[in-house]
Amino acid sequence: MTDSIYSDLKQLGGATVMPTSPEEAELERVPNPQADVNYNVRFTAPEFTSLCPMTSQPDFAHLVIDYVPGDWLIESKALKLYLGSFRNHGAFHEDCTISIARRLVGFLEPRWLRIGGYWYPRGGIPIDVFWQTGEMPKDVWIPDQGVPPYRGRG
Amino acid sequence: MTDSIYSDLKQLGGATVMPTSPEEAELERVPNPQADVNYNVRFTAPEFTSLCPMTSQPDFAHLVIDYVPGDWLIESKALKLYLGSFRNHGAFHEDCTISIARRLVGFLEPRWLRIGGYWYPRGGIPIDVFWQTGEMPKDVWIPDQGVPPYRGRG
Amino acid sequence: MTDSIYSDLKQLGGATVMPTSPEEAELERVPNPQADVNYNVRFTAPEFTSLCPMTSQPDFAHLVIDYVPGDWLIESKALKLYLGSFRNHGAFHEDCTISIARRLVGFLEPRWLRIGGYWYPRGGIPIDVFWQTGEMPKDVWIPDQGVPPYRGRG
Amino acid sequence: MTDSIYSDLKQLGGATVMPTSPEEAELERVPNPQADVNYNVRFTAPEFTSLCPMTSQPDFAHLVIDYVPGDWLIESKALKLYLGSFRNHGAFHEDCTISIARRLVGFLEPRWLRIGGYWYPRGGIPIDVFWQTGEMPKDVWIPDQGVPPYRGRG
Amino acid sequence: MTDSIYSDLKQLGGATVMPTSPEEAELERVPNPQADVNYNVRFTAPEFTSLCPMTSQPDFAHLVIDYVPGDWLIESKALKLYLGSFRNHGAFHEDCTISIARRLVGFLEPRWLRIGGYWYPRGGIPIDVFWQTGEMPKDVWIPDQGVPPYRGRG
Amino acid sequence: MTDSIYSDLKQLGGATVMPTSPEEAELERVPNPQADVNYNVRFTAPEFTSLCPMTSQPDFAHLVIDYVPGDWLIESKALKLYLGSFRNHGAFHEDCTISIARRLVGFLEPRWLRIGGYWYPRGGIPIDVFWQTGEMPKDVWIPDQGVPPYRGRG
Amino acid sequence: MTDSIYSDLKQLGGATVMPTSPEEAELERVPNPQADVNYNVRFTAPEFTSLCPMTSQPDFAHLVIDYVPGDWLIESKALKLYLGSFRNHGAFHEDCTISIARRLVGFLEPRWLRIGGYWYPRGGIPIDVFWQTGEMPKDVWIPDQGVPPYRGRG
Amino acid sequence: MTDSIYSDLKQLGGATVMPTSPEEAELERVPNPQADVNYNVRFTAPEFTSLCPMTSQPDFAHLVIDYVPGDWLIESKALKLYLGSFRNHGAFHEDCTISIARRLVGFLEPRWLRIGGYWYPRGGIPIDVFWQTGEMPKDVWIPDQGVPPYRGRG
Amino acid sequence: MTDSIYSDLKQLGGATVMPTSPEEAELERVPNPQADVNYNVRFTAPEFTSLCPMTSQPDFAHLVIDYVPGDWLIESKALKLYLGSFRNHGAFHEDCTISIARRLVGFLEPRWLRIGGYWYPRGGIPIDVFWQTGEMPKDVWIPDQGVPPYRGRG
Amino acid sequence: MTDSIYSDLKQLGGATVMPTSPEEAELERVPNPQADVNYNVRFTAPEFTSLCPMTSQPDFAHLVIDYVPGDWLIESKALKLYLGSFRNHGAFHEDCTISIARRLVGFLEPRWLRIGGYWYPRGGIPIDVFWQTGEMPKDVWIPDQGVPPYRGRG
Ligand SMILES: [Ca+2]
Ligand SMILES: [Ca+2]
Ligand SMILES: [Ca+2]
Ligand SMILES: [Ca+2]
Ligand SMILES: [Ca+2]
Ligand SMILES: [Ca+2]
Ligand SMILES: [Ca+2]
Ligand SMILES: [Ca+2]
Ligand SMILES: [Ca+2]
Ligand SMILES: [Ca+2]
Ligand SMILES: [Ca+2]
Ligand SMILES: [Ca+2]
Ligand SMILES: [Ca+2]
Ligand SMILES: [Ca+2]
Ligand SMILES: [Ca+2]
Ligand SMILES: [Ca+2]
Repeated sequence: MTDSIYSDLKQLGGATVMPTSPEEAELERVPNPQADVNYNVRFTAPEFTSLCPMTSQPDFAHLVIDYVPGDWLIESKALKLYLGSFRNHGAFHEDCTISIARRLVGFLEPRWLRIGGYWYPRGGIPIDVFWQTGEMPKDVWIPDQGVPPYRGRG
Repeated sequence: MTDSIYSDLKQLGGATVMPTSPEEAELERVPNPQADVNYNVRFTAPEFTSLCPMTSQPDFAHLVIDYVPGDWLIESKALKLYLGSFRNHGAFHEDCTISIARRLVGFLEPRWLRIGGYWYPRGGIPIDVFWQTGEMPKDVWIPDQGVPPYRGRG
Repeated sequence: MTDSIYSDLKQLGGATVMPTSPEEAELERVPNPQADVNYNVRFTAPEFTSLCPMTSQPDFAHLVIDYVPGDWLIESKALKLYLGSFRNHGAFHEDCTISIARRLVGFLEPRWLRIGGYWYPRGGIPIDVFWQTGEMPKDVWIPDQGVPPYRGRG
Repeated sequence: MTDSIYSDLKQLGGATVMPTSPEEAELERVPNPQADVNYNVRFTAPEFTSLCPMTSQPDFAHLVIDYVPGDWLIESKALKLYLGSFRNHGAFHEDCTISIARRLVGFLEPRWLRIGGYWYPRGGIPIDVFWQTGEMPKDVWIPDQGVPPYRGRG
Repeated sequence: MTDSIYSDLKQLGGATVMPTSPEEAELERVPNPQADVNYNVRFTAPEFTSLCPMTSQPDFAHLVIDYVPGDWLIESKALKLYLGSFRNHGAFHEDCTISIARRLVGFLEPRWLRIGGYWYPRGGIPIDVFWQTGEMPKDVWIPDQGVPPYRGRG
Repeated sequence: MTDSIYSDLKQLGGATVMPTSPEEAELERVPNPQADVNYNVRFTAPEFTSLCPMTSQPDFAHLVIDYVPGDWLIESKALKLYLGSFRNHGAFHEDCTISIARRLVGFLEPRWLRIGGYWYPRGGIPIDVFWQTGEMPKDVWIPDQGVPPYRGRG
Repeated sequence: MTDSIYSDLKQLGGATVMPTSPEEAELERVPNPQADVNYNVRFTAPEFTSLCPMTSQPDFAHLVIDYVPGDWLIESKALKLYLGSFRNHGAFHEDCTISIARRLVGFLEPRWLRIGGYWYPRGGIPIDVFWQTGEMPKDVWIPDQGVPPYRGRG
Repeated sequence: MTDSIYSDLKQLGGATVMPTSPEEAELERVPNPQADVNYNVRFTAPEFTSLCPMTSQPDFAHLVIDYVPGDWLIESKALKLYLGSFRNHGAFHEDCTISIARRLVGFLEPRWLRIGGYWYPRGGIPIDVFWQTGEMPKDVWIPDQGVPPYRGRG
Repeated sequence: MTDSIYSDLKQLGGATVMPTSPEEAELERVPNPQADVNYNVRFTAPEFTSLCPMTSQPDFAHLVIDYVPGDWLIESKALKLYLGSFRNHGAFHEDCTISIARRLVGFLEPRWLRIGGYWYPRGGIPIDVFWQTGEMPKDVWIPDQGVPPYRGRG
Repeated sequence: MTDSIYSDLKQLGGATVMPTSPEEAELERVPNPQADVNYNVRFTAPEFTSLCPMTSQPDFAHLVIDYVPGDWLIESKALKLYLGSFRNHGAFHEDCTISIARRLVGFLEPRWLRIGGYWYPRGGIPIDVFWQTGEMPKDVWIPDQGVPPYRGRG
């Protein structure tokens, strides 16, 4: 069983090595098989980790990405490796979240894209970062990401 | 107790066999008894399963379909058999979700239709697919589908 | 302690008998004491049951009704008896939900009305039915009905 | 430590007696110290109780009040006593909820006000009452009251 | 990076084919690297599906397996393939749940094993099946499986 | 595909009529295919309804039954019809819950049985009824039924 | 439809007046129709209110009562009136909770009784009071009351 | 309305000043009016704050205290002031939690006491501290404190 | 690993002392590295505490701040110290919440800012305060703050 | 403000470097200031990550550790660094969870210790690992870790 739209992929199914930095990571894309309609694809990545650029201590985040594909779909295994490439990379919360989104925007040229970065608390105060490429398209359905707010204890 | 609008149905109440592919599955429809008003019908199918076209491993999804009927209602047993027919069929998440919706659109000619496909995680990252035929009709009530976001562990 | 706006009611406070069919049930109404403002009244009826018209097996639903009263308020005990009158009555999910709403619309002439019918699953796939008389009035507050989606198991 | 805007208050800090009826209760107000911006103040009163005017049996409600203050803020202890004054007072659900809101509107002349009255079930069917003085102001932030719907059992 | 205790495994890392029946599925095991202490390993399989032996319609279940390993650990990929092999196999709920557990008991000779089978509702009434090989060992920690009960709607 | 242990069943698969009283309902049983081990089977029936013997008004309950089968398993369709037969039958909460359990005990001769009856509130105060045939067997696993407590509103 | 075990009741079905103090309230009891087995009956009373004996301000509590009946069942309407009689009665949290339980113990002579009094916070710190007549009987099933703990905000 | 067992209290009802250290805080106690039975009293204090002894930064905790009173009840306002006295006091999590409990043990001589200290995360890792004076008394009912575990984000 | 945009910061990484009043606290800011797009940054501060200006008793709140940065980002450690500086400062709920927001507005000149102050209950009635600088910007994504409403008990 | 029991610590408060392997990480301990009583200390570490030894892909877990200290308390910053040292280390789920616990047991000589390792799903099936050093001590209070079970989607 094969699928011709995937025939150019390099990483899917073969042996893969985690790239050591975001720059080294190679995104891959496949033609959108339903490009004549506008729909939303959501990736939920609860396993994101990077390093604090000031202290080199690990930071953790739960990321959710929504996008309305144009001509291209992101290939999910390559996306996973790209996100994994931040493992030993220093980046601030705001900068890191926005730059992931912008790299996807540049690579996929989606009709619209949104990212939510929900960071684990440091100093008792978590930071969330929310971005989208512009006003939510009216005829496309983009459900709320629904991540529960941080509550402290009790 | 019978209902004449159901008198042409083939599968309801009789013995039924699960169709072996989506193509083989036969949808059925009945006249909409309240066609002079616009309302929304929601089907929730937490038991959807198909195969990955690359690896033939099973995939699972929780599907929710909202539609505003025009002249026709979908018959629910036939819908169930149609969804069951993906059991041994290979399909990508995005393609599969959208094509189910589009087959219903073609068959029912609804005034509006929305599908949410909430797929179980693979590689730690679940994919959700959201589509609707166009902007949500203003005078019809379409509640949020309310499926909780994927949270990982903890 | 009495209240003159209730002085014409027949069923409130006296002995009552559950009507044996929706047709037999008598709705009652009282003048709206706050008719000079637009507000929303919500009834939640988690105890609705009717029969399947094809098999005569019982069906169950959780119903929520929102309405903006005009000159009249529905009397709640009569509403309860009306809903109870479906106990031995055959009706399809879509038809039953919409017809309850339309009878209330005819009887109360509300400024606006909405019904949500959340039916228990049959064949693994529950059906929800959502209707309103028209676009939600802009200056009235109509909170989401907030019924959690069906989740299957796990 | 004192605060001059509170210097005219009668009930705060002194001994207080629960008023025996809503008419007897005296609301108090203080100048709004941030009157040059529009903001929302929410009171949540999970301890409201009144009597049924037909049967004199106690009724219970969870009340939530949102308002955008103009020149005045409600003093919270006086509000608490006013709400407590319904303890031995007969009032229907719809009428009681709306009249509390309207008394506050008359006394505070807020820029906008909303009340949600979430009544405990009687006869298996709870009633919720929702009112606001008009369309939600566009530049003010009024979060959903988020009270969970009644679910029956199970 | 390799691990000698895994050196005899056949299915891990290589291409794998879903076995077509439970009989055909081959379980695999590795030596328990911490066999000198008693601990509990839990597998949660929310993606179980089999066929009803009477009607050949698909059944779905959420399975949770706890076991205290003796000399052997189950290899997780082989377990996944074994569970997947029920996809086109007919089995009743009670029989199916218990037989999965007993095959693991025979193959792994664990110090203790427990299975919970939480089946999706049929006819409105779900069945759960709970088994363990004997009284819970006193010095081992076996947390509750904590699967929420079925609630119907509302 | 057939299963000989079910070959004597009368109601499964054929046309069925809801019995008009509990006395009229016929339970059915099949040999326990795993009778050499002790396990627990749970039925969750969120759709139970009966009548109040004093007022003939409908009562509703969410029932959960756990039992450790001996020689027999209850046949689930017959159980469903038996529970449905209370639809027009008058019974008090305590009596009704216990008598359902005791009829099952007499018919199945289980090694142990437990019933939880979670009744919808009347007069603001729900009643729950809990019974088991004796001390929980030590070597069998009986998870908590986990039905959430009644909370009123708010 | 009548039930002879209820034939001596005074308050059920007739007009009732809320007693003005606990002393004035008259409990009623009926013979236990299933007295040959040990089972648990739970009443949940989310609508309890009394007065603070120091300040005369209203206090509120959510009460849950479990008891294993001996020869008698409490009649639920009389129980409701008894609980309602605390409405204008001054009582401390600890004393009030325990004395309700002990009056029931004296009147019903149950085989075992437990009360949980979950009081609304005063000064930011709620008090819960828990009592039972003795060690939980081993062969009777007494589920946890499951009232969620107080959490403050956030 | 007064209550003689409270006649010796100094702080209740009068003006109070927050003590500036735990040593300065004065606990108060009243005779236990139900001392002939064993019951549990739970205080939930979601507003606890102290200082880190190393950095002087504020720490926060949610505290829950259960105790079975002997001859004395703690007076709740004095307890609140005692807990408030940690506001500017340096104390480690483990030491602080245990020493609060031990001061209460010394002052009240309860039959049994338990404390749960649920501290807000520092460095991503919250600490909880759990202590009780000894084995849980068998005939007294001590419900689980039920504080939800820390989950991070997502 | 350093980041030049942080090179002017005074408090980050060095020894810090909690300022003794809001006036004394020094906010710090860094250039917004993604200033060419509009995004939202959320801080959740579940550890806010101040004093009541009338009674000097501690008050507690859960604060959530959303802002769309312009040229500047708030430095999170300085924000934490600023919020901590209210620890021994008297301020009313409404005034305190709004003034924190306005100080941030003055210092950061954000494109938009919103604050939610969720205060712990006093007298059984919590107050929430909600403010934003103006209508929510249409092309920026500002998720609901999602703090659950206060529920009392039960 | 200092605390003599911490005077020998090397890592607390100074600059720290994440150790590159578990072997390199240095645990630190301080004398238990309340060693004359038995209490439980819980660490919750939702940010644990290691590498799969077969594929070098990252694995993630939520870890919870309970221990009853004897002469020593673990120093929390050193614990955090030790857990962080698994970031680039290959380890199987079962082995990794148990070996963390055993290193703590060797270093702290606690009276009792328990670990729960809740791993993120791989192949749709998460693994949880539970260990304790022996039967739960009877007079110490060890609350359930309460981590919710994995649910898949829907
Ligand atoms: Ca823009
Ligand atoms: Ca909290
Ligand atoms: Ca379109
Ligand atoms: Ca998480
Ligand atoms: Ca229309
Ligand atoms: Ca599920
Ligand atoms: Ca209007
Ligand atoms: Ca056995
Ligand atoms: Ca329900
Ligand atoms: Ca017995
Ligand atoms: Ca409430
Ligand atoms: Ca005793
Ligand atoms: Ca001890
Ligand atoms: Ca404005
Ligand atoms: Ca409640
Ligand atoms: Ca052992």
